[in-house]
Parts: sequence; C-alpha cells; structure tokens
Amino acid sequence: MPSFALRPLKEPAPMYTVCVRGHVMIAHSFQGELFGPAQRLHGATYVVDVEFRRAELGPEGVVIDIGRATQVLTAILEELNFKNLDDEPAFANQNTTTEFLSRAIFDRIAMRLDSGELGPGADRLSSLRVTLHESHVAWASYEASLGLARS
Amino acid sequence: MPSFALRPLKEPAPMYTVCVRGHVMIAHSFQGELFGPAQRLHGATYVVDVEFRRAELGPEGVVIDIGRATQVLTAILEELNFKNLDDEPAFANQNTTTEFLSRAIFDRIAMRLDSGELGPGADRLSSLRVTLHESHVAWASYEASLGLARS
Amino acid sequence: MPSFALRPLKEPAPMYTVCVRGHVMIAHSFQGELFGPAQRLHGATYVVDVEFRRAELGPEGVVIDIGRATQVLTAILEELNFKNLDDEPAFANQNTTTEFLSRAIFDRIAMRLDSGELGPGADRLSSLRVTLHESHVAWASYEASLGLARS
Amino acid sequence: MPSFALRPLKEPAPMYTVCVRGHVMIAHSFQGELFGPAQRLHGATYVVDVEFRRAELGPEGVVIDIGRATQVLTAILEELNFKNLDDEPAFANQNTTTEFLSRAIFDRIAMRLDSGELGPGADRLSSLRVTLHESHVAWASYEASLGLARS
Amino acid sequence: MPSFALRPLKEPAPMYTVCVRGHVMIAHSFQGELFGPAQRLHGATYVVDVEFRRAELGPEGVVIDIGRATQVLTAILEELNFKNLDDEPAFANQNTTTEFLSRAIFDRIAMRLDSGELGPGADRLSSLRVTLHESHVAWASYEASLGLARS
Amino acid sequence: MPSFALRPLKEPAPMYTVCVRGHVMIAHSFQGELFGPAQRLHGATYVVDVEFRRAELGPEGVVIDIGRATQVLTAILEELNFKNLDDEPAFANQNTTTEFLSRAIFDRIAMRLDSGELGPGADRLSSLRVTLHESHVAWASYEASLGLARS
Repeated sequence: MPSFALRPLKEPAPMYTVCVRGHVMIAHSFQGELFGPAQRLHGATYVVDVEFRRAELGPEGVVIDIGRATQVLTAILEELNFKNLDDEPAFANQNTTTEFLSRAIFDRIAMRLDSGELGPGADRLSSLRVTLHESHVAWASYEASLGLARS
Repeated sequence: MPSFALRPLKEPAPMYTVCVRGHVMIAHSFQGELFGPAQRLHGATYVVDVEFRRAELGPEGVVIDIGRATQVLTAILEELNFKNLDDEPAFANQNTTTEFLSRAIFDRIAMRLDSGELGPGADRLSSLRVTLHESHVAWASYEASLGLARS
Repeated sequence: MPSFALRPLKEPAPMYTVCVRGHVMIAHSFQGELFGPAQRLHGATYVVDVEFRRAELGPEGVVIDIGRATQVLTAILEELNFKNLDDEPAFANQNTTTEFLSRAIFDRIAMRLDSGELGPGADRLSSLRVTLHESHVAWASYEASLGLARS
Repeated sequence: MPSFALRPLKEPAPMYTVCVRGHVMIAHSFQGELFGPAQRLHGATYVVDVEFRRAELGPEGVVIDIGRATQVLTAILEELNFKNLDDEPAFANQNTTTEFLSRAIFDRIAMRLDSGELGPGADRLSSLRVTLHESHVAWASYEASLGLARS
Repeated sequence: MPSFALRPLKEPAPMYTVCVRGHVMIAHSFQGELFGPAQRLHGATYVVDVEFRRAELGPEGVVIDIGRATQVLTAILEELNFKNLDDEPAFANQNTTTEFLSRAIFDRIAMRLDSGELGPGADRLSSLRVTLHESHVAWASYEASLGLARS
Repeated sequence: MPSFALRPLKEPAPMYTVCVRGHVMIAHSFQGELFGPAQRLHGATYVVDVEFRRAELGPEGVVIDIGRATQVLTAILEELNFKNLDDEPAFANQNTTTEFLSRAIFDRIAMRLDSGELGPGADRLSSLRVTLHESHVAWASYEASLGLARS
C-alpha cells in the first residue's frame, strides 16, 4: 500500500484542538541594529492563544479540562504581567521577541503539564501551539510535539 | 538526498485551503463533575469555520465550489440550529462539547462530500478542518484526512 | 449664528469612554410566532461589552477603576452564566432577547454603581452602554444616561 | 412642532464618519494605589482608531482625504512609538492611561487639522473620536466636537 | 439645576440598538486627483453593518424582526453584489466612495421601512446607522434620524 | 519504540512562525458557469496574512526581520493594488480566485526571498503560508515548503 504509506507525510492525522485565550502587558527593549527604534525601551500587549492537541477525546468528551487550562494560562501570564522583561533573570541576555516569548510560554505550560496541574488526560496531549498577537497586523507562534519531552 | 527524504516529515506539503463560516445557536448540558456549573442546562453560539484542503486547484482555479460549500454548511447547521442537543437521538449519552461537535459536523460534511453534494472536484479534497468558536476566548477544532474514508 | 447655537444639540459633547468585555453562555426560548424556530429551547454565547462614560477624568487619569469594573461585570454575568433563563424568576413572562438582556445587564450595573461597588468617581459617570454580541453577524445594545436615576 | 423641537435632543443628526486605524507600542507606569501591579513599569500595544465626522460630503464624495488622514495618524503615532512614556516631557506628572492617551492623540490630530495638514474639507469636520484598544477585552476613547475650538 | 437641564443635550437618551451584518463585493473607480491610484478601476469587499435604533422595545421584547431585517439587508446588497458600480445608472456621475455607499444603503433601507417590508414596529424606529468596513484598517458610516422622512 | 517512529508522521515538528498582515483592493471577473454572478466584473478587498516558518530562531531571537518582511509584502501588494486583474498580463487566461491569488503572492514572496531581499536568516525559512481573507465569512490560503525551490 504505497499510497497509504505516503499519505501521512502529506496530510494531517486526525486531531482535536482546544484553544484558550489570555493576555499580558509588558515592557522590554531589544539588542541589535536589526530592531531599529525597538532597541529603545517600549512595550506590548500580547493576546495569547494556547492550543492543546490530542488524537482522541477522553471519556468526558474533552481534549482537556478547559477550566484548569485557563487557570494554568492565567497563572503563567501573571508571572510576566505588568513587568519590564529586561529585568527578569529568566530572560537575561535574551531578546524577548514575540517568537521567543511564544516559546517561553510553551515551555512553562509544558512544565505544568508534566507536573500534573492540568489533570487527567493531559498525558494524552500530543502537541501544543502558543500564539502571541502583538497587534492587529502581526503575530508569532511556537508549536512542538510533547512526545520527546516525555519519552 | 537524506535531507529531502526527511523534509516531508517536518514541513507542510503544498496545500490550498478554502474556508467558509456559519453559525448555530443551541442548548445543552454536560454530565461529569469536571464541568462544574456547565452541568446545568445552558447554551452556546458556535461560529463555525470549515476548511477544505486540496493539493492542486481544479481547472476553474478553485479548491471547491464555494457556493455549494456554503449551502452544505448551512444545511448541516440547520439540522442543529435552535435545538436542545440533550434531546437529539444522534447525541444520546454524549457530552456535546465544542470538540465533540467539531467532529460531528466534520462527519456530516464528509458524508455529503461522499454523496456528491459538493460537486466535481470534491473527490480531490485531501482533508477537512472544522473549528467551533464558542466565545472570544475559546475555540475547538477537529481535522482529519479524507483519504481513509474513501479507500 | 443660529447654526452655531444649534450645533451642541447635534454633536457629541466631550466624553471619555472606557469599555470592558466579558461573556456568558445561557439557554432560553422565545414566545411569539415572530421568532420562528427560536421558539424552541436553544441557547447563546453573549460576548458582553460595557461602556462607562464620563465627561472628565478623575485625579488618577481614569474614567473608572477598570479592575473593579471588570469584577462587577464578572459578578453580574456569573448570576446568569450556565443557566436556562426560562427558569429565572427575574425574567418570568419575558422574552430574554438580546436587546432585553442588554437592558437587564445595564440595570444590574447601574444598581451596583449606586451601591458604591465601583468606588470613587463612579458618581461622575454620565451614561452607560451595554452591548451583547450574539454571533459574528448580530448584536444588540442598550444605552442611557445615569442622570435621571440619581436626581 | 414640539416633536421636532425635542427630537434633536434624542436622536443623531445626519452624520458621515470615516475611520482609519494604526497602532503604537509603548512602555509606561502608573502612580496611585488604584493601579495595583500596573504601578510597575510595563507596556502596551494600542490599536488606534480615529473617526472623522462631517454632516455633508465634499464634492469628491468624501468626508476627508483618507490618504492624508492615514499619514497624519501615522506621524502622530510615530512621535510615541517605541518609547517609555514616563520619560516624555509632554506627559510629565501624568498617568498615561488609555483614556488619557485617547485625549492626547485627539488633541494632536485637532492641531494638525487646524494647521491645514488634512487638506480641503477638514474645516467642515464637526467632531472626532479617538479609540485605543489595549487588549481584546478593554478599550477607551475620547470624542468631542471641533466646533468650539474653532469659534 | 441648570446642569440637569443641559444634561439631555449632551448625553444619549435611552436607546436600544439591534445590528445585523452582511457583505458585498463590487468594482468601481473614482474621479479626482485626490484619489491617486484609486482613480483606476479596482474593487472592494464591504462588510456592512446596519443598526436599527428604537427607544422602547415592542411587546415581543424586540427592536425589530431580526429575520426580516436580515432579509431586507440581503436583498439590498444583492442589488449591488458582483457589479461594476461605474455602470450603475443610479450612481451616474458619483464617486461611489465608502461613505457615499453607506448613505446609499441607508436610503434603500429607509425606503423599505417606509413600504412596510420590515413589519410591525418598524415605524417606531428612531434612527438607522449603516457602516461599511472596507478593510481591517478603514471603515465609513452614515447615520440619521428617521423622523423627518416620516413627518 | 514504534510509537516514537510513527510520531513524527502525525505531529508537528518544532516550528516558529511569524505573520505580518497587509491588504489590497482589486477588480476582476471569473470565467465559468460555476461562478454564477461572479462572472461579472466585480471586486474584492483581500486582507493578506503571510506566515514565515523556521525551526530555530536566529541569533537576534527572530524568525525573520519583520520590518523587511512587511516592506516586501507591501511592495508585492502594491503591484496588484487598485488594479483590474483581468488586464494583468501575468494573469492572462486565469481565474484570479482567492486561492489562485494566495499562490501568486506566495510565489512572489518566495522569489524575493531567493533574491536576498529579506536579509540574513531568510535562507533558514522552511515554509511559507499566504492567507487571503475575502470577507468576514470566507478566506483561502496556500502553503508549501521552501525546500524544493532551493535544492
């Protein structure tokens, strides 16, 4: 069945996604000529979408407990909210670009998944995607499988 | 060329997508402590996006007849609109969560594709994605290849 | 210059507005042939915007304490959330249409303003507007001066 | 005709509006316990809508030259973009709240209107409204007649 | 209490609004140097919002029959949809700008209101507003009282 | 570990995405009965999103220079803006459908990537996606790996 063998390379496997949204308001500056005036201290509102993906629904018919997912997102954003990220030790010597922060929030959610905070079924999640909307004309995201982290 | 051989595993194959939007207003309740107050009879507006994916355009330069696609989506949503889903035999003993309904609408569109309602070219579609927006801060989706269903 | 004398009647006086957003998911049904299939038990997600208007800013440079405003909106929406409005005594013999609910939420916010829950400066608000978005293609609102209620 | 005499008090006069959108990314902090954690240095993306209102269209069928209006908005936002507003002399001893900044941008547009930068027809504008969206769940605006400023 | 006497001049009277949305895709060109490259034949998608305003709800708890309102909007947009407006006799020698079209659609809705197509209660409407979104960064609207047309 | 071996077929590899938005207003007509009234000369506003994807961030912490990316998108849209696409030699004998134009804009961006206009790091991009929103209820996109074009 060569057509079957090739198909998964091209097309999405069956997948459910649930997404929750929050936001955070921070200050920061960037290092590097590339950034032009954004080298100055400025700020951003990031509207943050977190997508949780799973191949099959749990017995209750859900991907994940959306209440807990929202609590976890809120808690992670609270760690960053109303801060100057230039002063955060966790981001020392880093440009906290929109794409970098997408990954940083991804990693913090993955850690809380591993510690069980999202409840039963969270170990069945196959991947996450975190998207940060920085304005009505620009956004960035980071997505990855959760498989390697667990194996 | 090992890099060529590996690349398709990581990156999207060439793909066109067309998406149409509709909406539906329903009542339902959920079974299970997980749902907290959503165990009570309540309701939702779902804004529904259906994405049709195809590797190459047809002779007219389209993925699918968007007029027919919209008609099919409207017809499927009409089956659910202004109803209490707790009373629908098709959903007996099911929590009609946002993710469950994404799949249910996916299946109904796939059935109409198979029966020819979307016209010529519909057999060239490789996959579908159905997304239900339940509010400005949460959505769920289901996506899958159409290949297995047809083989 | 009679046109100058009349102008203030036609054009907006100087006015600041602050708006906060929440949402609520409810079930209900409507009485009357006008409503067609919406006479059946169904439901809606309402994305709710509340606008607070004031002619001059307070000493802190704000229209109102936006934190308290959000708390008050959340508390009011919690009274309705995940409920079948057909069973609510407060709405007995009423069609809980989008426009009716805009007014009902307006009244509940005005009551909490009067009881001091929104803090200092709330007595300087001149008017409110409450908008309920029921889908991506329809919304309703109610707006009114707060002046008469206080005199 | 008492109904005519009263009507202007309640209903809008005929009015055309044209709105253009831009955005700005800034840092700032607030003074006052009211602001809680927003007393810390943080930041925001403001998506800025400017509405130009006029009772009758000009000979070309427009409220204003939308190209010039966009240039003026861009120029004004450039004065603030990628800055720490705490360091701006123009805002010394001010909380640069969303509502305060709506007014500040209103005033800067009104000044450029008066200096003729928006071209012919700008003197026929009756009012402006400036709205700053600070997130997907909050915005503020300032609106006022342009009549008094010119008389 | 002169401030009380003046207040109604400045603040909104109690008012309900219901809004429905549709869209239309047209070609056109503009006459006049002001328009720069838009003097060439080009086109636009207009997402059209129509707001119906009324001081008190009817016996069913509605501003207007929203089903009929949507039908009327659809019918009016159908008159323009997929056309080159430069060839429309109704718009001869007119620049069909976004603001001009807002008024043209306003007038067509007002005519249908007068002919009774929106059903009982439509004669209680006090004003209409028509907004055309031409992109994610620009819109125009026209609003007016319905009173004079009827007296 | 067969589950490990299969996983990459089903799940996304780690991937960063940056997206910028622009828009274009064009006229065109379609050939073919399928299109019904869209066979007439009409037009559209396309709100255009371009996603740039890359497996790892560059030394500055970015996927791509977002300033240059926006310039390139603006330049490409300028080639089409305020035109009748029926008269464009590049599109002769083509239906310039939303999906076709998604591909055409994809190809023009890929060409500029190859010519170095997006600066250092652009050769590390793995894929692009171009999405054209034609209204609030329909969009189309084209996405593909950039690998083959470079090998």
